[in-house]
Amino acid sequence: MSSPSSAPLRLGIAGLGTVGIGVVKIVQTHAEMIMRRGGRPIEIVAVSANSRTKERGADISGYAWEDDPVALGRRDDIDVVIELMGGENGAAKALVETALKNGKDVVTANKALLARHGTELARLAESHDRVLRFEAAVAGGIPVIKALTEGLAGNRITRVMGVMNGTCNYILTRMEATGQGYNVLFDEAFKLGYLEADPNLDVGGIDAGHKLSLLSAIAFGTEVDFDNVVLQGIGSISLDDIRLARDMGYSIKLLGVAQMTGRGLEQRMTPCLVPETHPLGQLQGGTNMVVIEGDSVGQIVLRGAGAGEGPTASAVMGDVLDIARGLRLPVFGQPAATLTDAPPAVVSAGAPWYLRMTLLDKPGALAKIATLLGESGISIARMRQYSHDGTDAPVLIVTHKASSDDISFALAKFAETGVVVGDPVALRIEEV
Amino acid sequence: MSSPSSAPLRLGIAGLGTVGIGVVKIVQTHAEMIMRRGGRPIEIVAVSANSRTKERGADISGYAWEDDPVALGRRDDIDVVIELMGGENGAAKALVETALKNGKDVVTANKALLARHGTELARLAESHDRVLRFEAAVAGGIPVIKALTEGLAGNRITRVMGVMNGTCNYILTRMEATGQGYNVLFDEAFKLGYLEADPNLDVGGIDAGHKLSLLSAIAFGTEVDFDNVVLQGIGSISLDDIRLARDMGYSIKLLGVAQMTGRGLEQRMTPCLVPETHPLGQLQGGTNMVVIEGDSVGQIVLRGAGAGEGPTASAVMGDVLDIARGLRLPVFGQPAATLTDAPPAVVSAGAPWYLRMTLLDKPGALAKIATLLGESGISIARMRQYSHDGTDAPVLIVTHKASSDDISFALAKFAETGVVVGDPVALRIEEV
Ligand SMILES: NC(=O)c1ccc[n+]([C@@H]2O[C@H](COP(=O)([O-])OP(=O)(O)OC[C@H]3O[C@@H](n4cnc5c(N)ncnc54)[C@H](OP(=O)(O)O)[C@@H]3O)[C@@H](O)[C@H]2O)c1
Ligand SMILES: NC(=O)c1ccc[n+]([C@@H]2O[C@H](COP(=O)([O-])OP(=O)(O)OC[C@H]3O[C@@H](n4cnc5c(N)ncnc54)[C@H](OP(=O)(O)O)[C@@H]3O)[C@@H](O)[C@H]2O)c1
Repeated sequence: MSSPSSAPLRLGIAGLGTVGIGVVKIVQTHAEMIMRRGGRPIEIVAVSANSRTKERGADISGYAWEDDPVALGRRDDIDVVIELMGGENGAAKALVETALKNGKDVVTANKALLARHGTELARLAESHDRVLRFEAAVAGGIPVIKALTEGLAGNRITRVMGVMNGTCNYILTRMEATGQGYNVLFDEAFKLGYLEADPNLDVGGIDAGHKLSLLSAIAFGTEVDFDNVVLQGIGSISLDDIRLARDMGYSIKLLGVAQMTGRGLEQRMTPCLVPETHPLGQLQGGTNMVVIEGDSVGQIVLRGAGAGEGPTASAVMGDVLDIARGLRLPVFGQPAATLTDAPPAVVSAGAPWYLRMTLLDKPGALAKIATLLGESGISIARMRQYSHDGTDAPVLIVTHKASSDDISFALAKFAETGVVVGDPVALRIEEV
Repeated sequence: MSSPSSAPLRLGIAGLGTVGIGVVKIVQTHAEMIMRRGGRPIEIVAVSANSRTKERGADISGYAWEDDPVALGRRDDIDVVIELMGGENGAAKALVETALKNGKDVVTANKALLARHGTELARLAESHDRVLRFEAAVAGGIPVIKALTEGLAGNRITRVMGVMNGTCNYILTRMEATGQGYNVLFDEAFKLGYLEADPNLDVGGIDAGHKLSLLSAIAFGTEVDFDNVVLQGIGSISLDDIRLARDMGYSIKLLGVAQMTGRGLEQRMTPCLVPETHPLGQLQGGTNMVVIEGDSVGQIVLRGAGAGEGPTASAVMGDVLDIARGLRLPVFGQPAATLTDAPPAVVSAGAPWYLRMTLLDKPGALAKIATLLGESGISIARMRQYSHDGTDAPVLIVTHKASSDDISFALAKFAETGVVVGDPVALRIEEV
């Protein structure tokens, strides 16, 4: 079949770190295969990074060098700019804008940039009739952007869920496996190099929230709205929570959920309980998983490596091959001008909740809590009081369906009862 | 972004059964969404089925009717023919050929047709510069053709595996859950309408083998070679096998495996043991799963409904939307002329095997078997003899890595020992 062009597709790569070098290696080792599949040769023309002299584990001497990455966006001998520097502003943003304005297609792995400026960049790309692709920005090697934008495009998407930060899932599953606490395993993850320079991007849910905001935009045809992703990190999850959840048949995951409700677009990235029998509950270690639900297709589960040189470079190359083959789609699967500005759903859809708190060992303490929940409109499905040493008594409550509002209201009131010690933990039980 | 055309994409649908009516319903209910995503309206112009008067659960009165489905391939007012009649020859083949020759793109869900005539039809399509797409033919609603052909195109694919016949997986997991035998659950599946008119298509592994041969062609750039898929059905799997496997931490699945080896292309669709901790081992009921392994991406797992009106129609619509959006790829991801005619690997790659047999309760019977295995070059990893009632003794052996040839050789010799009762069962333990 004739390709749109059989001339070589010429790449400029900005950023030669983990992902950038991964891309260089694939282009260098698989030239023949890529040509067979892409219908034309794919060549690297020029590259840029901070240091020209750093040893990089791949021979880049055959490529032109730019000290200023933004200059790649202006070169006449480049068709596609691949932005792999990172950062939500600065050089990455300047390069993407320059490239689009200069008639180049862009591929990026930069979720922070797109979560902040995705709608605006999509408009820019489409006004210049360019494509801007970002498979590698969400769930690494899993072709989830493609599944959602293309394969499942005949569906009204009803919900998208995902475990999309490998570091958080690593910490949570290691807590369960080893019985070690959050702080110990945070340090372990740090030593293994699993954490971003700013660890809060990982354990605070921000990185995963960035990814969720991109999936939402495609799934629901809405402008990217990272600011309204409800974020809660995993720092407050204790070993007790993990064990109690497991006792009841659940695992705790940092779970992203996006759905369009009558009250607006709901986007959250929070620790949730999921059934241990569901693939989400069984997900171990740094692996990622995305679950897409559509009105025709039902539930599709996608699982794979969410980061690392090979998987992320694989996703970048998928995008590059699409461009080589002439696939030209709007950035979020429909014209940027048609993305709606959906109001955020302030209150999340009703769900059962897991509540754990420590009560003073005083007569009537539990009754006070039960009464207060009743007054907040929350009914109790299960309650357990754990044996204790005569002072403070840990209590576990599973509620029937309640809204996040009802739960917040009740939690605020708990403090006033004078019987709750410290901060209660409230985790949503996501029905999957 | 401007689509290649903004004129309506005009469909002709042949076959108004489960899948066909599913497609009609999506087009009718989601017109606005489809236009937003596809960049142009999608309209059904004409349809065909056996009976014009049958009640079909969707209003088709607005579409032209053709008594002869092949006539759809000649109509000037149709851009895309959707073949949903089924059958590896006859009307389905005639329609696909006619449509391609008359300049129409084709979408089909017909794995039997493509497993038999895929290479030839790909050549025909490409010689007429037409696309022929078949996402719905493999694993229903899971966008696996897209993942393999596009998203993972930057990878050298090392292995593709799949549980792709929901009926077989239903029977096997129900055997395990209920403790009922194969025949009882075969009857149950029959009553539930889960079996094809010729049940051997399902339980004999043929249907799943068809699907595997299509994945192989894309993964390894080879001509479709269904004739060389090693097929073994699930009819010989007993409750004992399921329980013994479970005791050792395995589940039995009708598993398709395709890989390119030094000895040629290996394609098998056979019952295998897989670890119960792997997503393949955890797959329950009629759900499908495909596992793709690539040199950069590692292991990607895709899970979803493998059949049914909604999921299959979702896959058809994904293909239709791709055509609307101007995506034009070779049928198997690279030009049909470049597909190689790989020799089949007659002997499968080495793996541990599960062997179950019944021995006469005679002194030295077990020693004879052990000696024979040793002479066949097969070493024993675990052996268990089960308690028995004084007559025949069931024996379970797990071997170290052995080739399928060594195993066949040993099995043939077992009969000559005079101590083996009935046919021994040999199942490969797939390392995942
Ligand atoms: N690593 C993963 O597994 C993964 C997964 C998914 C997405 N991503 C995303 O992919 C992008 C790259 O990640 P990475 O892990 O490859 O990062 P990295 O290893 O830190 O590499 C960043 C590269 O960009 C270069 N760079 C940074 N700022 C620059 C500037 N102002 N001008 C020129 N060059 C600059 C650096 O140059 P020097 O080498 O000279 O310092 C380095 O080569 C990020 O957006 C990240 O979020 C990464
Ligand atoms: N069902 C699934 O879940 C599923 C999943 C994946 C793939 N598929 C594939 O999709 C295709 C269709 O499956 P299905 O389940 O929808 O089949 P189905 O329910 O049996 O429907 C077949 C349709 O084709 C029509 N038809 C058959 N032969 C014809 C002929 N010679 N001329 C005109 N019309 C003819 C029938 O007409 P009448 O209605 O008038 O008899 C019927 O409408 C098959 O290739 C199947 O393998 C199905």
